[in-house]
Amino acid sequence: MAGIDGRGVDTMAQLGGISTMLQERDQYEEPAMPNEIDQTHDAKIESWVESANDTSSDFPIQNLPYCAFFSENSGLMPTCGVRIGDFVLDFEPLVEAGLIQVGVGLDATYFCTLSAEERRELRRVVFDLLRADNGELRDRKALVRRALLPVGEVEFGVPVQIGDYTDFYASLYHATNVGSMFRPDNPILPNYKHIPIGYHGRASSIVASGMPVRRPRGQLLPGATIADGEPVFGPCKLLDYEMEVGFFIGGGNEPGEPIAIEDAEDCIVGMCLVNDWSARDMQKWEYVPLGPFLAKSFSTTVSPYIVTMDALAPFRCEATKRAEGDPEPLGYLDSEANRKAGGVDITLEVYLQSAQMRERGMDAVRLSRGSFKDMYWTISQFVAHHSSNGCNLQAGDLLASGTVSGPTRDTRGCLLELTWDGDPWAAEPVVVPGTQRTPIELPTGEQRRFLADGDELIMKGYCEREGYRRIGFGECRGVIEPATE
Amino acid sequence: MAGIDGRGVDTMAQLGGISTMLQERDQYEEPAMPNEIDQTHDAKIESWVESANDTSSDFPIQNLPYCAFFSENSGLMPTCGVRIGDFVLDFEPLVEAGLIQVGVGLDATYFCTLSAEERRELRRVVFDLLRADNGELRDRKALVRRALLPVGEVEFGVPVQIGDYTDFYASLYHATNVGSMFRPDNPILPNYKHIPIGYHGRASSIVASGMPVRRPRGQLLPGATIADGEPVFGPCKLLDYEMEVGFFIGGGNEPGEPIAIEDAEDCIVGMCLVNDWSARDMQKWEYVPLGPFLAKSFSTTVSPYIVTMDALAPFRCEATKRAEGDPEPLGYLDSEANRKAGGVDITLEVYLQSAQMRERGMDAVRLSRGSFKDMYWTISQFVAHHSSNGCNLQAGDLLASGTVSGPTRDTRGCLLELTWDGDPWAAEPVVVPGTQRTPIELPTGEQRRFLADGDELIMKGYCEREGYRRIGFGECRGVIEPATE
Repeated sequence: MAGIDGRGVDTMAQLGGISTMLQERDQYEEPAMPNEIDQTHDAKIESWVESANDTSSDFPIQNLPYCAFFSENSGLMPTCGVRIGDFVLDFEPLVEAGLIQVGVGLDATYFCTLSAEERRELRRVVFDLLRADNGELRDRKALVRRALLPVGEVEFGVPVQIGDYTDFYASLYHATNVGSMFRPDNPILPNYKHIPIGYHGRASSIVASGMPVRRPRGQLLPGATIADGEPVFGPCKLLDYEMEVGFFIGGGNEPGEPIAIEDAEDCIVGMCLVNDWSARDMQKWEYVPLGPFLAKSFSTTVSPYIVTMDALAPFRCEATKRAEGDPEPLGYLDSEANRKAGGVDITLEVYLQSAQMRERGMDAVRLSRGSFKDMYWTISQFVAHHSSNGCNLQAGDLLASGTVSGPTRDTRGCLLELTWDGDPWAAEPVVVPGTQRTPIELPTGEQRRFLADGDELIMKGYCEREGYRRIGFGECRGVIEPATE
Repeated sequence: MAGIDGRGVDTMAQLGGISTMLQERDQYEEPAMPNEIDQTHDAKIESWVESANDTSSDFPIQNLPYCAFFSENSGLMPTCGVRIGDFVLDFEPLVEAGLIQVGVGLDATYFCTLSAEERRELRRVVFDLLRADNGELRDRKALVRRALLPVGEVEFGVPVQIGDYTDFYASLYHATNVGSMFRPDNPILPNYKHIPIGYHGRASSIVASGMPVRRPRGQLLPGATIADGEPVFGPCKLLDYEMEVGFFIGGGNEPGEPIAIEDAEDCIVGMCLVNDWSARDMQKWEYVPLGPFLAKSFSTTVSPYIVTMDALAPFRCEATKRAEGDPEPLGYLDSEANRKAGGVDITLEVYLQSAQMRERGMDAVRLSRGSFKDMYWTISQFVAHHSSNGCNLQAGDLLASGTVSGPTRDTRGCLLELTWDGDPWAAEPVVVPGTQRTPIELPTGEQRRFLADGDELIMKGYCEREGYRRIGFGECRGVIEPATE
C-alpha cells in the first residue's frame, strides 16, 4: 500500500550493509557532478554475468537500471529488479535469501520510496553481488537460476506506479521550430526563457514499451482554419511521435514546501525514454487556450528502465549557457551546481520501421540523433519550478522534458519538425508554415510526413564517454494500430 | 489493491440482497432522467436518524452521499460510509455484522469500483437499513453506537483515492467573461462551441475541505506585459477561487475503447463541489501556450461527499439549448437522453469570511449564487469527449466542470469575474480589460478584489424541487494562509 499512503523506507539500516568497499572510493575522480564517482563507475570492473561485459551492451555492471517485469514467478503485480547484460536480476529471491534487505516491500513504487542515500547504497550492494570477483551470489547456482532471468522470458511493465505526470517543453530548438509553424511572427513567447514551460499530462494512459498504440480519433478541421469548414470526428491524420527523456521522483515534498534547486537532484531517482505520441491535427484544433489534451492523452510510451542518476554521474555536463541578451534564470532556478553539471549528455536516436519494411526483413531506418545536453532547461530546474508554488511532488511521479531537438535538421525529435521545410536556425530562415513539407523517404519507396498504420517507432538512448563504460537506456517501442471503426 | 490493478466487484450478488421493496418501484414517476425515480426518492419516507428528517438538512435519507473519514476506529486509511443527518454511517461495522456485503474490500477507491447497478443496489440496502420503519439496524443499539458516528467526531478526507484529475471550462458565461478580459477582440475562440475544452490537472494537490491553503509563490510580471518589467518571484497577489462541480468516475474504460455518450452516465458515481484555487497573476504569465500549470497546482479543494447520481435523479434537467447560429454538437457528443436530461440543477453558493469578520463574530457574506444547469456542456459530454481518443478513464478519476458562472453578475463563480467592471452580457457591453475593477465591500469595511490572507472561502451546493427532499452537497471550505517566507 506504499503507493497510497506514501510510506517510505525509514532508515538506511533497512538496506543491505554488505558493501565493504566504501573505503575504495577516494581513489576515483572527484565529483564534478552532483553524484559521486566511485568504484561502481570503474570501467575495469566486470561481472560474472558475462553478457554485461560486452562493451557494446547497454547494461554493464556500471548501469544496473531499475525495472519491473512479469515472469513465471510473478503474480498480479510485477516484480522489481535490475537489468544486467542479457538478464534481469529479480530482487525477490535475493530478499528471501537475505542478500538484499528492503523496508516496506517490493511494490510498484519501491524504487521511488528510497532516499538518495538508500538508492546509492542499494546500487553498491547489487554491484558487489554481481562483480566477477565475488562468489556470494555467483556460486549459489539454485538461487542464481531463480533470480537471474533471461530478458526473453520476462515482460517489462512501466517501471513504477506513476502518480502524476508532467511534461515540459524545454528544448528552445523545438519550441522555436514549432512556434515558427504555428505563430510565424512570434515563435518564442515572452515567458519561454523565464519559465520552464510545462503542463500536466495524463498518467493513466502511460504504457510500457512494446504496447501497441492505437491511432486516436478526434475532432479535426478539414482545412487550415474553421473558415475552411466545420470540424469532423474521425481518425487522426497527422500522427507524430516526440522523442523525450523522463525522470522519476523519489521521495518528494510536502504540500506547501518547495524543493530548493540545490536539493532537486536528491529527489530524482533516474531517467527513461518517453515517446509523447501526438495527434497534430487534434492538437492544433484543441490546444488554445488550455493546452494539449486529447492530442496527447491517448498514449504515452516509456522505456522499461530507470537509469539511475548514480549510473549517469560520469555523463553530467554544463547546463546550456544563456545566449547574449537572454535573461538569467531567477534565483530559485539557479545554482552553481546546476550551471556546472545540470545537463546530462544522453545521445538519443529515433528509428522507424514500416510494416512493409518489417515484412521484407529490412532494418529500421534512423530518423534522427540528438542529445539531451542541448536542452534549454535542466532537470533540477524542472523540479525547483514545479514545486516552487508548493505543489507536492510524490514518489513515482514522472516528469518529462518535452521533445528533445537540437540545432541541426538531423537532431529534430519529431516528424512535425523533421518533414517541415522551414529552418529558423539557417542563416536565412525560410518559414513555410504547414504548406510545403518534405517527406521522409523509406527504403521501400514509401514516404512519410506523419506515421502510418503499422509503423513501428523505436527510440534508443545511451551515454558514452572516454574512460567509462557505455550506459544504455534500452529501447522505447510502439507499433501504430489502425483506429477503431 | 483495487486502486492499483483496477479489479472491481464482480457480481451484484456480492452486494447485499435484503432490498425487498423493488416491486414498489412501479408506483413512482417514470424516469424523465437517466436514473430511475424509485422509493429512495420518496419525500414521505423518514429515517430513525432523526436529524435527517429536518427539511432543512442537506442529508436526508434520500441523499446518502458517500464519504471517507478518520475516526477513533480507523487506522492509517480512512473508513468508508455515508452521511445521514448529523452522522456518518461507518460501513465497516455493518460489513462485520453482515448487513452490507462488499466484494474486494472497503478501500480508498471502494465506491468507484462498483458498477452502476451495484451502486443502486447499495443505495437501496442502506436506505432500507435507515428507514424509520425498519428495526433491523435501529434496534441493535451496540452496533448503532459503533456504526453511527456524530460528524463532530470524525475528520473527512478526500472521498476516494483520485487517480487522474481533469478540469473543463464548460461555462460559456465564464469563458466569455474571462476571454473578454484576456482577449477583448476575440473572447470566445472558434473551438469553444465544438469541443468541451479541458486540460489535465494535478491530482496530488487535491485536498479535503477544511485544509488550509497556502498562498503560492511564483513568477509574476510587475506590469501588464514584459515590456513593463522583468518577472519577479514572490507571493501571488491575485489569488482567486473558482466555484466548480466535480464528479468521480466509476469503472472506466479500457485503453483504446471510448465510452459512448449513451453509456457515460453509468460511469459517473456522483458529484462534489470543487474549489479550483487560481493564482491569476501566475496564470496570466505562464499559460500560453500549454495552459494553466503552477497557477492551479498548489491546491484544489473538494467537498467531503460524493452525492450520487441516483440521489440527483429528481434534479436532472435539459442540457442548455444551443443558441441560434451555434453549431450542434457532433454525433459523439450528442444523444437524445443528453439533450433531455443531461443537465443537473444544482444551486451553488459562495461565501467569504475574512479574518476580521471571524474575530468579530460576523457571518460569512454571500458572494454569488448560480446554478450548474447553466453550463454549456454536460457531464456526459465530458466523459464522451475525454474518452473519445481512447484515453482510459479509471475508477476514482475526478472530472471537474470549470468555473460555474451564469448570465448575471451575482451568478459569477470567481472573483476575477465578480470584481470586474465589464459585462459582455449587458445590452451594451462595456469591456474594461483588467484596469478598473469594482471591489467587493465586506461588512467590516474591508475591500476585496482578490483573496487576502486569513480569508475563508466557503462553497455550498444543494438541489431543491417541489415534491422532493432537499439534497445537499455540504460545504467546501478553505482558509488562506500567508505565503512562506
